[in-house]
Amino acid sequence: MADDPLVIFTPSGKRGRVPAGTPVLEAARRLGVDLDSVCGGRGICSKCQVAPGKGAFSKHGVTVAEDALSGINAVEERYDRIRGLKPGRRLGCQAQIQSDVVIDVPPESQLHRQVIRKSATERVMVMDPAVRPFYVEVVEPDLDDPTGDFQRLSAALDEQWQITGLRADLEVLARIQTVLRKSAWKVTALVWDNGLEPPRLIDLVPGLLDGPVYGLAIDLGSTTIAGHLVALDDGRVLASSGLMNPQIRFGEDLMSRVSYSMMNEGGAAEMTTAVRDGLGQLAAVLADEAGVDPALIAEAVIVCNPVMHHLMLGIDPVELGQAPFAPATSDAMTLRAAEIGLQIAPAARTYVLPIIAGHVGADCAAVVLSEQPQKSEAPVLMVDVGTNAEIVLGDKTRVLACSSPTGPAFEGAQISSGQRAAPGAIERVRIDPVTREPRFRIIGVDEWSNEPGFDEAAKATGITGICGSGIIEAVAEMRMAGIVDPSGLIGSAEQVGTPRSIPQGRTHSYVLHDGTDAGGTLIAVTQGDIRAIQLAKSALFAGARLLMDEFGIETLDRVVLAGAFGAHISPLHALVLGMIPDCAVERVTSAGNAAGTGARIALCSRAARREIEDQVHRITRIETAIAPRFQEHFVAANAIPHATDPFTELQTQVTLPVVSYNTAGDGRARRRRK
Amino acid sequence: MADDPLVIFTPSGKRGRVPAGTPVLEAARRLGVDLDSVCGGRGICSKCQVAPGKGAFSKHGVTVAEDALSGINAVEERYDRIRGLKPGRRLGCQAQIQSDVVIDVPPESQLHRQVIRKSATERVMVMDPAVRPFYVEVVEPDLDDPTGDFQRLSAALDEQWQITGLRADLEVLARIQTVLRKSAWKVTALVWDNGLEPPRLIDLVPGLLDGPVYGLAIDLGSTTIAGHLVALDDGRVLASSGLMNPQIRFGEDLMSRVSYSMMNEGGAAEMTTAVRDGLGQLAAVLADEAGVDPALIAEAVIVCNPVMHHLMLGIDPVELGQAPFAPATSDAMTLRAAEIGLQIAPAARTYVLPIIAGHVGADCAAVVLSEQPQKSEAPVLMVDVGTNAEIVLGDKTRVLACSSPTGPAFEGAQISSGQRAAPGAIERVRIDPVTREPRFRIIGVDEWSNEPGFDEAAKATGITGICGSGIIEAVAEMRMAGIVDPSGLIGSAEQVGTPRSIPQGRTHSYVLHDGTDAGGTLIAVTQGDIRAIQLAKSALFAGARLLMDEFGIETLDRVVLAGAFGAHISPLHALVLGMIPDCAVERVTSAGNAAGTGARIALCSRAARREIEDQVHRITRIETAIAPRFQEHFVAANAIPHATDPFTELQTQVTLPVVSYNTAGDGRARRRRK
Repeated sequence: MADDPLVIFTPSGKRGRVPAGTPVLEAARRLGVDLDSVCGGRGICSKCQVAPGKGAFSKHGVTVAEDALSGINAVEERYDRIRGLKPGRRLGCQAQIQSDVVIDVPPESQLHRQVIRKSATERVMVMDPAVRPFYVEVVEPDLDDPTGDFQRLSAALDEQWQITGLRADLEVLARIQTVLRKSAWKVTALVWDNGLEPPRLIDLVPGLLDGPVYGLAIDLGSTTIAGHLVALDDGRVLASSGLMNPQIRFGEDLMSRVSYSMMNEGGAAEMTTAVRDGLGQLAAVLADEAGVDPALIAEAVIVCNPVMHHLMLGIDPVELGQAPFAPATSDAMTLRAAEIGLQIAPAARTYVLPIIAGHVGADCAAVVLSEQPQKSEAPVLMVDVGTNAEIVLGDKTRVLACSSPTGPAFEGAQISSGQRAAPGAIERVRIDPVTREPRFRIIGVDEWSNEPGFDEAAKATGITGICGSGIIEAVAEMRMAGIVDPSGLIGSAEQVGTPRSIPQGRTHSYVLHDGTDAGGTLIAVTQGDIRAIQLAKSALFAGARLLMDEFGIETLDRVVLAGAFGAHISPLHALVLGMIPDCAVERVTSAGNAAGTGARIALCSRAARREIEDQVHRITRIETAIAPRFQEHFVAANAIPHATDPFTELQTQVTLPVVSYNTAGDGRARRRRK
Repeated sequence: MADDPLVIFTPSGKRGRVPAGTPVLEAARRLGVDLDSVCGGRGICSKCQVAPGKGAFSKHGVTVAEDALSGINAVEERYDRIRGLKPGRRLGCQAQIQSDVVIDVPPESQLHRQVIRKSATERVMVMDPAVRPFYVEVVEPDLDDPTGDFQRLSAALDEQWQITGLRADLEVLARIQTVLRKSAWKVTALVWDNGLEPPRLIDLVPGLLDGPVYGLAIDLGSTTIAGHLVALDDGRVLASSGLMNPQIRFGEDLMSRVSYSMMNEGGAAEMTTAVRDGLGQLAAVLADEAGVDPALIAEAVIVCNPVMHHLMLGIDPVELGQAPFAPATSDAMTLRAAEIGLQIAPAARTYVLPIIAGHVGADCAAVVLSEQPQKSEAPVLMVDVGTNAEIVLGDKTRVLACSSPTGPAFEGAQISSGQRAAPGAIERVRIDPVTREPRFRIIGVDEWSNEPGFDEAAKATGITGICGSGIIEAVAEMRMAGIVDPSGLIGSAEQVGTPRSIPQGRTHSYVLHDGTDAGGTLIAVTQGDIRAIQLAKSALFAGARLLMDEFGIETLDRVVLAGAFGAHISPLHALVLGMIPDCAVERVTSAGNAAGTGARIALCSRAARREIEDQVHRITRIETAIAPRFQEHFVAANAIPHATDPFTELQTQVTLPVVSYNTAGDGRARRRRK
């Protein structure tokens, strides 16, 4: 009798002998090869497709015979006829190994497939979500077996999928009898298993689930709640959306919300209700946009700053407003999604990333998870721009973090023509340094405002306001064109030589767009807008500078701009504005919404959750609120770009006009040009 | 240098050597001696009191010197001055071992103290509740320690009490910051730990908790919800109460509630709300009666039949109404108490005993836990009387169980003058066989109705109706006095020779009490009442007989009557009525509310929970609804006591008159007396 046939799986290289007649799926399981299956080998889910090799494989010392696998059987024929099987593919659960064979597992058949995410630090992520679908056939009850339906379902999952100790919420127990009977005892169980607690039944779907289960990755900011709907088989994003945090009516920044809670009996509870409503709305919008049944959204991952964290959880944030800023709880948490207002699958779970300290949140932890500063050779500064900015500075030796209360100006709030990033909002601005005439782009239109076709294209939305990236560019361009002086003062029409500078009380505004003739809006940058941006950018700069002091460095090798609109911030304009310390402009990159990306990574990978839970304990957090030098850095950073720092790297790129419009000193305007 | 001193603890006999200067509490911990402590050795809780021996202990070969323990220190002196220390007692955490010593741990200082419960089978129970109080001093937050309050509390519990992996619900996380600060970081944590899941913080109490934590043991019946409030240190019952199940408006028996759910959209949900409201009310009543803060009630244990089980959990019971009677879930469950309407401690847990089958509930499991048929040498029949009767028959070889739909007659419902057991209700009845004059006792009055002082004493409540035990005695006495014939017919005044038999339509009623002259009520047993009792007792008898068939026995060695009013049922009258198969009257005992007792046992002991979870899988359940012989037994049991069984054991005690009041056969009444 011949030896058992040898089977070699690629790309893993795992090999071994199995008895002739063993199905490929079974062989893969025995050899620890990562081959997906939802139906458990019944030939209906097609997740276990493999590509058997042909001919000689000298590397492996194997020659594969024509009939190394059993012929195509009725199940495969039927599947191919109805759904179509790619050439060369076989169903791993049907094809049986007859003689030595090399079998390739294509990426889409790998349960723990790798996903490559492009970012500042390109990283490979292995899909390893907490929720997976498992198809089972459940034994029907009869008079001789008095156990419950749930016990028989659990036994099936144990026997067919080795899932032991399953638990279920009442919401699911209330559904299982109907679903089991409606689907003739054949169901797909959505099982949540974080590897630490007993596995939990999230829901039952009749028959074989045709498609993936989904998850939500949510970045809960003070001003904006942004979310992605993600397919949990391969991590692709099916919808992204955002809405204003309904809490904004209780105060624009975090500290005003903490005060609201302190001054108003029941105020914290009101804000909790508001933010949970917002989360519920966002989930509905995302499901609707992606055309996905909300009941198939089985988990949500949430990142947020500590105040939002507490308010979302129903914890009064009052202690976060006073030293020593102790949070009620800081570790990662798993909750029922319904507890925080998410109306998704009946027993869906929510994973909340750990917070680092009372002022440094789970959003900052998510930035670290996404950008991996702890793996960088040279110190890298990461700035997640938002109403509360998360700032991280680190390298292989250590990682520092702080948060800085920038206020909502960068998100278009507190800006006279400010609005959130939506079609019609000005997102790019250029000002001719000679004529001081502006041109701009709005979201939803490809042309610049001075190009043919713009007016026609802009009719759809109108020109409605300025969003975060737009205001940053507008102020920086005004500084480059000499319309604003280093102290932030806007010159008069006479001083700057353009009628676009119009008086407003005792100050001036610069008109970007006057749509009033056509019934539209006047969009201008006011002196108040400049002041708001100055306060915001000073806070950001001071936080970054504080971390550099602590780290013991004077210059930066690399800066990553992140945040809800991180991808849209122009590095050059950020430097001109002095949002960040000086750095070679080509070494300033955008990482998009790094906090949101961190949330997506945690959603797709349990290992990533363990990683960040471990990592947060190694991050040194710097408390800006009590650091004496913070105030000093803040004041010096009020100038554009800075009062004392020469910004030598920036000077190699642009020359900023030396102007001053301060008339308080000698009673008249001065204008100097180099 | 001398050897380390030898310490011997009694009554455990545990012994060992410890370094001189070791506190007694510390020595006890090292030697695995069960010595209580809530404050963790800080000399404030006094739970660790011990009684050191004096002089020679020849049995142990030890002579205890006068100064074997260190002298009374300032902490003990202060405690003695303020709270008082019994003579000869020392605080185990303060007294240090200096030389060989024998130390007695009195029962009240044992954490796992034994409680002896008197019942049909006297049993010793060891206190081992899931929730215990732990006093801790928590490290205050400071700017250098960014962890959350909950993490520092958890660390304190880990370090001081070896409790690892603590979890907390949001409700508790929302409270901890306030409690910790209010109590200067010294708190008593109520920790729930069932030994299977991560321990859970139920609540925090400022400072040292002065007293025990509490639990509820609830027997959720179809007609009555009965509960005990129990101290979880020694298992004593501080209050017992009951109320009508508010679900009764949806149907008196279980099957009518199942139909209500089938016929009415949302009907199951309505019933769930009703029963949860009832549970909430009961908890409030019990806390109020015992004068206990509801926030200190940390766990509830619930037993109930399968339909109540499902309705309480929010599961539609429809499958329980049709073969194969599959429950949605049958295993024991742990829930948050708030989920089922119990407003007790913020994160209190509820343990629900396992159900045995679709018709044999957690109440039956509780009867088994309480009465331990599996340890009986001879077969014992246990009958838990209620609207749905739980019947268990077993011995060391095997245990059978069934339930039988007796209806609510035994609980005073469906009885014309029926009422629940409350002051003023007739609970005992005797009828003179010669004069056929009745005498009775009412709840709340010690005298019988024919005794001096009764009229005066009864004024407080009036004579308001008949409760369950009263109607059983009334019918049995009517049968013994020849007022009712074996078929259940009440004779006319002429036939039975007393004007107390009054006509009512075409049938007769027997007047127990006529209070109408004094503005009170006429309390009579009507023909309809007799019929209702006959139906109820036939169902009970038939269920018991079915189990005997299955067990293969014709006679019973021992019967235990249990149920909400089990302790009040007279064994002789139960036999005369034929509620149970014939048995020597002295071998019929009352066990009180065995289901409720089982709930109390599970509340006080985690080991008991494991025991019954294991035991239920070894109980054979008999399905009365589909057993062909059930109907046969039911019909034969309609007669009083029985149509065919001679009840020979009963005949040795009483002679039942041979009478017949059936006038249908020959057109006239017959009366025969032996």
